[in-house]
Parts: sequence; structure tokens; C-alpha cells
Amino acid sequence: MVVVMKAGATKEDVDRVVQKVKEAGGDAHIVVGEFKTIVGLVGDTERFMELPLTSLPGVESVVRIGKPYKLVSRSAHPTLTDVKVGPASVSRRTFSLIAGPCAVESLEQSMAAAMASKAAGATILRGGAYKPRTSPYTFQGLGIEGLEILAECRKETGLPILTEVVDARDVEIVAQWADALQIGTRNMQNFQLLAEVGKTGKPVMLKRGFAATIEEWLMAAEYIAREGNLDIILCERGIRTFEPWTRNTLDLAGMVVAQNESHLPVVVDPSHAKGKRSLVEPMARAALAAGADGVMVDVHHHPDEALVDGAQALEPNDLTRLGAELAALSHAVGRPFASEI
Amino acid sequence: MVVVMKAGATKEDVDRVVQKVKEAGGDAHIVVGEFKTIVGLVGDTERFMELPLTSLPGVESVVRIGKPYKLVSRSAHPTLTDVKVGPASVSRRTFSLIAGPCAVESLEQSMAAAMASKAAGATILRGGAYKPRTSPYTFQGLGIEGLEILAECRKETGLPILTEVVDARDVEIVAQWADALQIGTRNMQNFQLLAEVGKTGKPVMLKRGFAATIEEWLMAAEYIAREGNLDIILCERGIRTFEPWTRNTLDLAGMVVAQNESHLPVVVDPSHAKGKRSLVEPMARAALAAGADGVMVDVHHHPDEALVDGAQALEPNDLTRLGAELAALSHAVGRPFASEI
Amino acid sequence: MVVVMKAGATKEDVDRVVQKVKEAGGDAHIVVGEFKTIVGLVGDTERFMELPLTSLPGVESVVRIGKPYKLVSRSAHPTLTDVKVGPASVSRRTFSLIAGPCAVESLEQSMAAAMASKAAGATILRGGAYKPRTSPYTFQGLGIEGLEILAECRKETGLPILTEVVDARDVEIVAQWADALQIGTRNMQNFQLLAEVGKTGKPVMLKRGFAATIEEWLMAAEYIAREGNLDIILCERGIRTFEPWTRNTLDLAGMVVAQNESHLPVVVDPSHAKGKRSLVEPMARAALAAGADGVMVDVHHHPDEALVDGAQALEPNDLTRLGAELAALSHAVGRPFASEI
Amino acid sequence: MVVVMKAGATKEDVDRVVQKVKEAGGDAHIVVGEFKTIVGLVGDTERFMELPLTSLPGVESVVRIGKPYKLVSRSAHPTLTDVKVGPASVSRRTFSLIAGPCAVESLEQSMAAAMASKAAGATILRGGAYKPRTSPYTFQGLGIEGLEILAECRKETGLPILTEVVDARDVEIVAQWADALQIGTRNMQNFQLLAEVGKTGKPVMLKRGFAATIEEWLMAAEYIAREGNLDIILCERGIRTFEPWTRNTLDLAGMVVAQNESHLPVVVDPSHAKGKRSLVEPMARAALAAGADGVMVDVHHHPDEALVDGAQALEPNDLTRLGAELAALSHAVGRPFASEI
Repeated sequence: MVVVMKAGATKEDVDRVVQKVKEAGGDAHIVVGEFKTIVGLVGDTERFMELPLTSLPGVESVVRIGKPYKLVSRSAHPTLTDVKVGPASVSRRTFSLIAGPCAVESLEQSMAAAMASKAAGATILRGGAYKPRTSPYTFQGLGIEGLEILAECRKETGLPILTEVVDARDVEIVAQWADALQIGTRNMQNFQLLAEVGKTGKPVMLKRGFAATIEEWLMAAEYIAREGNLDIILCERGIRTFEPWTRNTLDLAGMVVAQNESHLPVVVDPSHAKGKRSLVEPMARAALAAGADGVMVDVHHHPDEALVDGAQALEPNDLTRLGAELAALSHAVGRPFASEI
Repeated sequence: MVVVMKAGATKEDVDRVVQKVKEAGGDAHIVVGEFKTIVGLVGDTERFMELPLTSLPGVESVVRIGKPYKLVSRSAHPTLTDVKVGPASVSRRTFSLIAGPCAVESLEQSMAAAMASKAAGATILRGGAYKPRTSPYTFQGLGIEGLEILAECRKETGLPILTEVVDARDVEIVAQWADALQIGTRNMQNFQLLAEVGKTGKPVMLKRGFAATIEEWLMAAEYIAREGNLDIILCERGIRTFEPWTRNTLDLAGMVVAQNESHLPVVVDPSHAKGKRSLVEPMARAALAAGADGVMVDVHHHPDEALVDGAQALEPNDLTRLGAELAALSHAVGRPFASEI
Repeated sequence: MVVVMKAGATKEDVDRVVQKVKEAGGDAHIVVGEFKTIVGLVGDTERFMELPLTSLPGVESVVRIGKPYKLVSRSAHPTLTDVKVGPASVSRRTFSLIAGPCAVESLEQSMAAAMASKAAGATILRGGAYKPRTSPYTFQGLGIEGLEILAECRKETGLPILTEVVDARDVEIVAQWADALQIGTRNMQNFQLLAEVGKTGKPVMLKRGFAATIEEWLMAAEYIAREGNLDIILCERGIRTFEPWTRNTLDLAGMVVAQNESHLPVVVDPSHAKGKRSLVEPMARAALAAGADGVMVDVHHHPDEALVDGAQALEPNDLTRLGAELAALSHAVGRPFASEI
Repeated sequence: MVVVMKAGATKEDVDRVVQKVKEAGGDAHIVVGEFKTIVGLVGDTERFMELPLTSLPGVESVVRIGKPYKLVSRSAHPTLTDVKVGPASVSRRTFSLIAGPCAVESLEQSMAAAMASKAAGATILRGGAYKPRTSPYTFQGLGIEGLEILAECRKETGLPILTEVVDARDVEIVAQWADALQIGTRNMQNFQLLAEVGKTGKPVMLKRGFAATIEEWLMAAEYIAREGNLDIILCERGIRTFEPWTRNTLDLAGMVVAQNESHLPVVVDPSHAKGKRSLVEPMARAALAAGADGVMVDVHHHPDEALVDGAQALEPNDLTRLGAELAALSHAVGRPFASEI
């Protein structure tokens, strides 16, 4: 950590910083520049961060050098993590297709989506029984009935289930049914919920908040990891920008940075990032080519009757084609397609 | 609601839209333009929103005309709402100062902040016992002990207490101690938490999400209102932008728009929006001049020892000066300063 | 175009809108909804846009339905445009690699970059003789000397030259040397410069402004097209967002939308979008997989001595590897790699 | 400047950095932390910035400590600058009202606006003869005829003229007619234009780019200052964010930061920032209360007939009321209203 002193800071100002740091068990090196003096701190950065250094006289700013995450950090944990979800695995060594209905609406609709997903090469079935919606006047999910339907689909297809949980009070019941738990974009900084899913020991997919920095995303993962659970799949799903024509802007470079910074697998959700069917396929291919560990897409046999996000769902035959394209691209870049292993 | 057809849409495409709308109990008017045809829908917009119209062949886009919020909408509820918080009131007719410690750290620190707030003209005491923090390695609040300290401060100063709740499971206990509940920026779309605080019947301050549109903010208020609770104070606290030199960009025009769109009082938090002490005072004055119904500021008697956000807390004598400035400006714009009534 | 009336608008308010529209030679259809009335306009949208309709009493807002661009629009010009740059061509039917030095610094450096580009499969040589720089205290380019160096490189390699022009007064001289002119991100709305390059008849690469919407980008292209020049290559190069760890966020979906909306080829510049070498390769591959018509990358034989943007330049052997990867991916998606035709 | 080494950097890596810095005439201090080593550089930061340090092996990042602007910097030039515009002056000691038509459309319209501006307390008349427009199909200004009309208005009212210049080739002619030149938001990084207006010796109002950081804005001012011209008025006019309901988000804290960082006066344009008349007045008052050195507003006697931006123009009686409000608030905060001196 570096403390930057103001142009007119006195020796006393600098000494006060040094003393604070030493009181906190650290050491401080002073570098006197032409215009400004900086103080380089050596020791426990977390302790230093708790010090209100910017409130001291003569201090202009504090620049953090090290990264605030530990358990999810690749430098502290160089072995890449393979996350097992039932019989499937999400990892840097393969490319996974995760597919299913956005929301579970009925057994018939979900089973059709599950069969189509399986056929297209998906190794994990996604589906929402609890839906966080911007408006209280829209469909909020089937709840436990939805979980039961997903379990039926699992029984029929053999695909493990990934489903969202939105309330700390529901974690226990959802964890009983699901193979993996999903934390949605709006809950990325719902720290109580993160701790609860961490405690279940189930694998967790953590979506990036639509306005979260990569650092905040990794810090959110750290909340889960702190409960002893490193089975975390990160999911980039687009960030909010000024551009009005696409719902969100998919940050594929952010995905690559998250792969470099952490040992966790990182997948991409092009369905929710874009909200338009015609953009889902090109963005799924782009995610693969950029090195993502998988993609997650919505499928619906009658998108024009979907209760949630029909505009972005692929039809079964679209999904089949996409699965084939992804398998081919996967081979071209020398990476095994997960369903073929 | 208006459905915009693609340039090459056929008569069948248009008829299909009309039929869907009629099946949903609505009516549709076709306007044939030079290049494009549009269909104007008449009836229940919420029903129409559930229809997957954009998935129909020939449909380019759907443009919502009406606003999705009802209970908090000013057009549906023209009388402005005064929110009572203990003996105080937050309303369009006065200008309120809300002040207190960012986080409750100890009885001594909180009491000093409470006394300074009272002296400066505050009518409500704010203070956090539960703190949502980006890093799991930082101070997370004193919890119930913090609530007890706030109650001591209330007893001593007579100021009602506003405090944050971050977990649906804590709502009951926090509501027992507090006069008003605060929903923080990261929880603005934690819909389960919104419903729980709505059920308590206590007044709620709803902070705008740092990346939420005004519409999403009002829809979040609608979640609270749906539980029968219209005692909602909206709080603008800055939005996330590309500018790195200030933590967030305070959206004062957004505050004015929220006042125009809803019947709820809207206050401004310049402390958290800016994160720098030297910007808090000008932004508090600006909020008043722009017509805000109040401001909320942090105070700490030793900012350089604060456990949370010391860089933005005012010292007691700064707060005294700010209180006097706000009272004077309040008189200049012909609006009663709440503590003087 | 649709005019939305306020909830309380009177019949007179509506009639005033209709009259204005009729005076402008258009026609208006009134659709009376439950809460609001809308007026659908039929006729010349450009005329209507000039009418100050939002200033009329009772008008809430005006929603444009049609797109404001014409000449670059795909619906008005369904045949896709192939842009010839010297012996090369940039089009939807192939995938082009454009490479070269960010800035021309010397003959030796530029020639090394040009040879490496040619060897890697580039069909166009890029290189900046005039550099727009944020700081007046940094290297601003070699000017005419730089153009002469580029011409030497063209002579040696046979690659046509693409180079930036930043001042309307330089267009004539730059157009004498270059095979294609580049408009940089900061000049995307320098409308006088756009008109000048349009007049030269030379092909133009138009980079997207780092904070421009797709619509604004296409409207900027319209300024060039209006001068009779449709030889325009659009270039997505990343947009400014809140994320601090990557310089800009590459908007690949925006690239796809631009391809759908216009008949022009669209390429991607992953070098400037990211500003980090390790992100250039994955983003170049992602651009290809998403369907871009080409990529443009920086190359420098000694990036650690580059005067401009060394951190993002590939070394010659990196470029060779990337060229091979792109050629292989290109075959995998069934698209000819431009240099192989 | 601080160079941060990667976690695994070797002694050779550090030595290479030190050597590069010494070759550039600087000095380097090594601070070995627990996880990372940092190198503090002492000497000419501009020289160091030209070094491609981030390309050296073992280097993670480079953190600039000092600010890149010099001539406009307050630390280098502590005396605040008063900018004279004809008989008027814009400075930190007073509050100025600048008003006039957005675009000059006719003598009658401009004269009405000029008279209304004068009556409301404006000391400078603004008006656009050259308009940069997003669409090539909209009114682009009257050009020289517009300048002549502005001169007529000056003759009649005695108010000095501020008008925009958009093309380096027009600077000479515009400077002959105008008392001060305006650089618009889209041209903030049109560096050739900045240099040209700097050379005229006329005062320049530099609007902030709608997506420019404060640092980039001050660097743009540095381009003007480098030509020997320090008569620069900075103008905050709103930045682009994700919020769709207001055209831009006015960054009043950014205005305060610009005042702290530079010696130049900083005014606010609430008309263009918001694009809605009902928001202009509250934002103008807020700007004053936040400490701005003035505001600039549009006026039009028939906004519903304006050719440009009618939706944001105040009518003359609105302007009169706003002038009175600003004068009263100015007195309340103890700052002379410029027209009353």
C-alpha cells in the first residue's frame, strides 16, 4: 500500500503516517519526490485498510497495491479448480454447455427444454423456480413446485440441476433439491445470502452484478469461499452501460481477467446479457473463442408463450445448431467439449 | 403500449399481434406509416407486458408508454405523502436534516455524534448497526449491541432512530428497536427484504441502487408499497459512472424526477455519494437548492479513527456550520427548516 | 413517430399536435388508451423531428420509431458493401487482418512491423503519422515524414496503407499518400472532418466513439455517405464503462448490431479497446467467432521501447501465432481468410 | 510515480526498472513488501510516462502519483484567474449568468433572447452560429450570417458575445466577431481546434466532453494554455450515464473538483445537461449553491418553434424569474451577482 502525501505536507504529517502504520504492526518507507512524498507500507494490508489514513493531515490519497481477495485468488492458490456438479464438471480443461428454461413454468415446458438441452450437448440443466423480477406485478416463479419439476427433469435426462436461490431463508430447501445453487446478478452483494450458500457445501454459480467491478465480483466470491466452499463457478452476464440498443454489454475481457485473477472456472451467460435471440449465438461463439469455460443459455419450445424473457430464449432446433457449432469450435481451439468426454 | 412492426411485416404478422392483444382482453389500433406499421394497444398494460410480443414474427420492438409503478405514482395518488418518523416528519413542505454516525462503533462515539446532530438541527438520528461491506475482512457492524446503543442515544436526545437492515431474518428484531428502517443501495433489488420491511408498517428509507434507473428505484418502492406501507422516503445517493475521481456521481436531477413521478418525499445522501468530506457540504447545499426534501450526512468526532468511511464523515463543528448554512438557505428559498417548526 | 400525451391532456392539446403535424405535411392517428392518449404520425419523420412537439402543452414525450440513418441503412440498401482498399477488400464474405505499428516512429520500426504483418496474413497495413493524444506533452506523430515511411513500407510489402487523419486541413495531403483514411474515436463526431474525408472518395475507416451509441456511430457514417462516399468500414474499438481494470469494454454485440443495421463491413480493434497485450489475442478470436469482418491489431518489434501504447502491441512472433489462429478459426466457421484468397 | 512489480518478479526485473529510470535521468527507491515489491520513482514524471515500463518483464502496473496538467493546475498557479469577456468578467469572486439562444435563427428571435437575457441579469450573451448536430439532416446553423446577428444584439444590449467554433478553419473569422469562443462537448478532444483557439488570444469556454473524465477535461484545457492563453472558462454540462430519463447526468461534484484542481473559473450549463425545461431551474440553483462561478442557460421566446433544442429553452418570463432567484440565492451565500457590480 502506498500513501501519497499532499504537495505541501510537512515532516510532521509524514511522521504521523509512519507512526500509525508502526502502531498497526507494519513498516513504512519514505520516498521523497520532486513535488510529492510517498510512503510505501510493508505488512498486513488488511490492517492498513482499516486505518483511516486519508483523514490524517497532509494525506492526499491511499493507493492499494495488493489485491483484497485471498481464497479465490490465483496467486495464493495456483492450482485451477474443477467444480463438480453431480456427474458433470466445469473446468478450464473443457468447455461446458449449460442450458435449460429461464423460468420453470410447467412440467411439459421444462421437460421439453431439458430434453433439447441434453440433445444439444448440455451437461447441466439450468432452470429458475424463484425469479427476482423488477416489477412486483410479474410472474415470480413456481417455488417448490418448480424444484419438483426440475427433479423430474433430472430423473428423465440424468442432467444435474442448477437453480437460483434469492432468499437466505430458502437456501436449505433449495439445496435439498438442487445439485448447484445460482446467485443472480441482483444478489451478488447480498452478503448474508452468499454466506448461507457457502455453508451448504453445494457448488455455487455466482453471477457478476450488472454494475459490479471485477474486483467486487471476486470479493463476493470471497464471501462464499470464507465459509469453506471453493466450489464456485463465476458467470459473466453483461454489465450496464450507456448503450440503449442491447440490454447489457457482455464483458468478455472481464471474463478473461477473472480467469487470470482467480483459480475458479468462469462461464458466460449470453442470453441474459443481451436479451435478444439473434445475439445469443454470436456471443456464445465469441465466449468460447475468448477462452470461457462454458456458456449458459435459455431454451424454450414456444418462446412466444414464455412467461419470462421469451425474447432471448432459443428454440430447441436453434439450441441443437448452437451445440453443434460450439462442439466444432471447441475442437478447432483444441479444447474438449464437456459432453463428449 | 405500442408495438412497432418490422419494415417488411405482412398483414398476417399485424393480425397476429392484434389477435394476441384481443385474447388478453385489450384493443388494438393499427397505424400504417410510410415505412413501418405500428399497433397502439389499449387496455391493461401489465397484461400486455406478460405477452411475449417481441417473439412474434414481424415484430421489431415494443415500446411501453405508461409507467409500470402504480401505488407510488403521483398521477395515481396526487396528494404528497408526509412520512412520520417518531416525532419527526419528512415531507415536501419542509427541509429535514438527518445525521449521525455511519456505523455505530461504541456508546461514546455514537452519543457524541447524536448530540452533535441534535445541536446542528437534525430531527432524525441515523446510524448503522448492520453494515454491508464489499470485503468480508472488514468491520460488519455491532448488530444488536449497536441497536441498544442507538436506543440510548434516542433516550438522551429525543431523536428518532433510522437504521439499516440487511437480512430479511433480522427485520423483526430491528423493527422492534428502530423508528424507521433503511434499505441500502446494494439491497434495493433484494425483493424479499423489501417485502419484509413493507410488512412491519414502520417507515422505510429506500436508497437508490448505485446502478439503478429511476424507474427501477420506483419499482423497488412499489414492492414495499404493495405490502400496504406507503411511508417510504426515497434517498438519492449517487450513481456509478466512468468518472474515477469521485466515488459516485450524485444525480440531483434524478432526485427532482423522482419527486415529480411519485408522491413520496425524496432526500439526498451526499456523504456516501461522494466519499470525500470536502464535497459533502457543497453537495448538501446543492441538494437543498435543487428542492430535495432533506439531506442525510455522516458525523464522527474522530474521523481519523472511524472504523467505516471516516474519509467522508463531518466533524461535529463542520456539522454545526453545515446545519446553520442549510437553515439559512432554507429560509432563502422559502422553505421551513424542519427542526425549527 | 409517436407522440405520447400527458395523463391530463385535453382534446385541445391533442388537436394542437395533429394540426402541427398536418402543417408539416403529415398525417396523425389518435389512439385513446385507458390512461394516456398517443398520436401516431405518418409522413416524413425528419420533418417531424424538426417540430418542437415536446414543447407543446400536454405533450409528455415523443418516441421515434424509424431509424434516422438512410444511406448507410441496410433496409434502404440491402446489398452488402465490399470496401476495396488498394488491392485488398474488406467485406462480409471474408475475414481480414489489418496490422501495423500504432504510431510510425522510424523507417526501421515501421518496416519491421510491416514485414511481420504481411507474414502473419495481413492484407492492409495500418500506421499512425498523426496521433491524437490526451496530453500535449506526449509524442504527437511524425506527420508527413510518417506518411513517407508508410509509402516505403507499401512499396516493399505491397500492402495498402490505412492511416489516421485528425484535421480537416490535412485531409488533402494525407489522401495523396494513403489508400484509406481512418477517423479515430475522438473525432467520430467531428462533423467537418467527416465531410472532408467523405469528399476525397478514398475508403474511410470510422472508429466508434468511446462513448457513442450505435445510432450515433451510424449517423456519423451518414455524414461521410452524404458526400457520395459509401466505402466506409466501421470499427468497434470498445466503449467507456465503470470498469477500471480494462481500458474500455469491447462491445462485440454492438458490432453485430451494426452489421445488422447497415450494409457496411464492421471490423474490431482489440488492441486499443483493451490496452493490454494479454487480452488482445482472446478478443481478436472472439471478434472472429462473433462474425466480425476483420480485426485490426498493433505490432511492434520492441514494445518496451514504443513511443505510444507499447503495452498493447504484439511482438512479431505473437502476431504470427495470432494470424495462424485466426486463419484456423476462420476455416472452422467456414469463412475465407482474406490473405488466402 | 510508482512501479508495482508482479508477485514473482526477480531481482533482475527490479534492477531493469531501476536502470531504465536512471537512464531517463531519474532516481528509484525500492520498497520490498510482504507479497510485492514497489519502486518509487523520483524525477521528471513526463519523461517516465514515455518509458514503456509496463512492457518490462515482472512489471504489474504503473501508478501515476502527480497530476499530468501543469499550466491550468492550481498547485502550480495558486492565484485564481478572472476571465474578462468584453466588459464582463467570470471569476470565483462573483456569480455570472450567461444566457441567450441555443442557435441563432433570425435577428428577431436572437434580439428577443438578448433583451430577455440582459433584463434577467445576464452579463454575457451566448448564441450558436455553427451547430454540431448528430444528424446531417438537421439545421446546422446560419454561419457568418449568425455572427452578424449576434453583433447586432451586442450593439443593442451592450452584452459581449460567446459563440461556438467547430472547425479550425473558421477560428479566424469567428474570433473577429466574437468576444469569447466556445468549444463544445464533442470537440473537447479536437486537439487541433484547441490549439487554434488558444492562439487567438480570445477567452475560451471549454465544455467538458460528455464522456470525459475531469483529468481529460483539464488536459484539454492544457492544450489551450500551451498556446499562451490562460483565459479559459471551464463548463460542466453533464456526463453520459446509464440513466435514460435525463439526457445527461450533471456532475456538480466534478465542477467542485475542477475548481479545486485548477485556477480557472468553472460554470455550469444545466440546459444542455438536462434537455428538459423543468429541470433547468432546479439545476441552475443547485449549481450556484454548490459554488459554481456561473451558469449558462438557453432562452427562446417561442420554444415550440425553436429549430434546435426547444425542449430545454426557457421562455423570457421563466428567465426573468430564474435571474431573480439566482440573485437572491447569490446574496444568501454571500457572493456578488455579477450584473449587480
